[in-house]
Amino acid sequence: MKRIMTSVVADHAGERVRIAGWVHHQRHLAQLSFLLLRDASGVAQVVIEDESVREAAMKLLPETVIAIEGTAVASAQAPAGVELHAPEITVLGDAVAAPPFEMRRPELNASLPTLLDHAAVSLRHPRIRAALAISAASLAGFRSTLDGLGFTEIQTPKIVGAATESGANVFGLDYFGRRAYLAQSPQLYKQVMVGVFERVYETGPVFRAEPHDTARHLAEYVSLDVEMGFIDDHRDVEVVLREVLAGMVGAIEERTPGELELLGLELPHVPTEIPRIHFRDAQLLLEPALGEPVVGEPDLAPAHERWLGEWARTEHGSDFLFVEGYPMAKRPFYTHPEPDRPDFSNSFDLLFRGLELVTGGQRLHRYDDYVAVLDASAREALDGYLEAFRCGMPPHGGFAIGLERWTARVVGAPNLRQVTMFPRDLNRLMP
Amino acid sequence: MKRIMTSVVADHAGERVRIAGWVHHQRHLAQLSFLLLRDASGVAQVVIEDESVREAAMKLLPETVIAIEGTAVASAQAPAGVELHAPEITVLGDAVAAPPFEMRRPELNASLPTLLDHAAVSLRHPRIRAALAISAASLAGFRSTLDGLGFTEIQTPKIVGAATESGANVFGLDYFGRRAYLAQSPQLYKQVMVGVFERVYETGPVFRAEPHDTARHLAEYVSLDVEMGFIDDHRDVEVVLREVLAGMVGAIEERTPGELELLGLELPHVPTEIPRIHFRDAQLLLEPALGEPVVGEPDLAPAHERWLGEWARTEHGSDFLFVEGYPMAKRPFYTHPEPDRPDFSNSFDLLFRGLELVTGGQRLHRYDDYVAVLDASAREALDGYLEAFRCGMPPHGGFAIGLERWTARVVGAPNLRQVTMFPRDLNRLMP
Repeated sequence: MKRIMTSVVADHAGERVRIAGWVHHQRHLAQLSFLLLRDASGVAQVVIEDESVREAAMKLLPETVIAIEGTAVASAQAPAGVELHAPEITVLGDAVAAPPFEMRRPELNASLPTLLDHAAVSLRHPRIRAALAISAASLAGFRSTLDGLGFTEIQTPKIVGAATESGANVFGLDYFGRRAYLAQSPQLYKQVMVGVFERVYETGPVFRAEPHDTARHLAEYVSLDVEMGFIDDHRDVEVVLREVLAGMVGAIEERTPGELELLGLELPHVPTEIPRIHFRDAQLLLEPALGEPVVGEPDLAPAHERWLGEWARTEHGSDFLFVEGYPMAKRPFYTHPEPDRPDFSNSFDLLFRGLELVTGGQRLHRYDDYVAVLDASAREALDGYLEAFRCGMPPHGGFAIGLERWTARVVGAPNLRQVTMFPRDLNRLMP
Repeated sequence: MKRIMTSVVADHAGERVRIAGWVHHQRHLAQLSFLLLRDASGVAQVVIEDESVREAAMKLLPETVIAIEGTAVASAQAPAGVELHAPEITVLGDAVAAPPFEMRRPELNASLPTLLDHAAVSLRHPRIRAALAISAASLAGFRSTLDGLGFTEIQTPKIVGAATESGANVFGLDYFGRRAYLAQSPQLYKQVMVGVFERVYETGPVFRAEPHDTARHLAEYVSLDVEMGFIDDHRDVEVVLREVLAGMVGAIEERTPGELELLGLELPHVPTEIPRIHFRDAQLLLEPALGEPVVGEPDLAPAHERWLGEWARTEHGSDFLFVEGYPMAKRPFYTHPEPDRPDFSNSFDLLFRGLELVTGGQRLHRYDDYVAVLDASAREALDGYLEAFRCGMPPHGGFAIGLERWTARVVGAPNLRQVTMFPRDLNRLMP
């Protein structure tokens, strides 16, 4: 008999069906046993009355993989309004040890380190799995939106000969006897590829040897990178970013309605026009509001971002806010200055509910501008990229979204590790 | 005026239009100049008669980025049946050096090392760009096919604490003072994720410290990985692989018709049922055909694969052939044996036109089977993955396609480096 998923058993009431999955929970009463079977689509209840089947079932460890043939019976008490009666059970995959936590609980009752140490099992829990499914849906929305806007997907190398962003926080490796590094971002490569396809995106891992063990940093994460040519300035980039965010939210709604319901989530609304404020104006608001010196500082503190998030909500009714024009002093070397105020930049951060989610902006596109900001040794190290600028590049810009950061915000997880399959940080390299 | 792409200029005959892109080629005659402008969609011809515009144009280096406003005029002689007259030219991005090859040539006249050294410019060439666009289309087809079959996209770490496949050919790195490695494949992770989503795929970089400098090997490449649970055996995996290949071919047809035409390609036909032959039977055919000892060898040589490719074509009219049952001796530790002949395996290679394109098969799914094939130190190193097997796994299997290898075969490139944006090998780490 062909297996069906537990999510569609209700459509087969009265029929004999075959389901398969993991033993999620068992409860043995005096005359009756209940077995919950979990598959990728959900959980089904199985009622066992036959004594020999009950005996066999009692021997099954949690997480044993079994197939069950039984009769689907509508039942108001059962979790999905349907349960299986008169089951026959076949073991497909033995379990030889029980998980270190009870999978049946609505939330796993274990510390985050324990969950991460046992990721091979904890990721199976419906709530954790749901967050990862939302992450996958977001990624699909990211790509389909950009495909629709004429972008081409690229893959650029993660082993690089020169550290892109800076020498700090970079992992080094031995590459056939030479010194190499893990790419901190595809920044210069995606810029080069604007010369090829004009509009490009990449979804892939980036690596930061972060010496801080915080809830907001990982040593390896998935970066959703976009770069586009023939822009007027960073505002054109913001327009595409807005479309991408709306596409990601739309894909979550479309692809993972069950997961949204399970987690009780309300998705953010992406306004047609995301409000924006200049960095300088933001500081002028913050100083009197917080009663502390803010104007002239080169960056915003987390408390400033939170206050601006509140301000965007009350003033503009928006979860999102563009802060534009960050001082050049705090932006990377490829950042394009603001034409009329060159201490400020044509770059932005996007705040989502008061937290920085995306960084982007216009880049330098003239070779001479790179000569002006890079010293001779940096120019030599980056010569293979700089050739793109020697040979003509259009005005361009882009942005990068951290996938884990996005997912954490959407599902309300305070720690990125809660939405990362196998996180890497200062202390964690396994599993 | 809003910019339009060169590919749609013909729809605007008689109108004043604005295009933008790179100076692809210029020809200055006595009374007249021709300028070819290249953008991401193609090339447009511009006719310059005005003497001052001609003078300005003559000063433009190849690859200068310009915008041109001109009148679209139908012309049978022009490349796309249309050209621009009475142009006004604006420089958007200076070029300060000419590329080391003439971009206008139908094929770039330079050695492969020169092209790769100057990837920042050579990738802009329409033929090279076309191959990369076909690669991107293939990737989109891979994902959409699997999305349609209920697979979930995953991302697994590239920095790992233990070498997955074997200790050989692995890049090591210093990870906050500990020894770590770059993942040679997501193999064990994707198996673990079958426990979560049942059907998963990943598209991402993998790393092999290949000590051989051949046309068929890269130190970093993009692996398209699939893994699925609740299979009967490797045949279920082959069915999905067939769907995926058909989806990739279909996406190329749909998304890159212009690139197919430019390269003069005929796409392979993926038969509804890809023919298959057992490894042992293949050897029994090869030995008399080649007149040399073959039966009993643990693997097929490239010459054997070529002969089998020919055989599949003449015998079955197919570009594709599954060779099943490779000896366990040559397969990795997680390979599932053939139940009735345990020296052979439930694994396969897919040959495409006589070259190995995909490897896949059924994996071990019982914890005790892993205990039997791994020694104590390997078990300790892999303990975080093995927990998935201790806690119940269904019969499962999967496959991996090398994206560059696929693209090279589709476009007929003899060397993988010709279809890789920035290849990494024994000698090449830049750009």
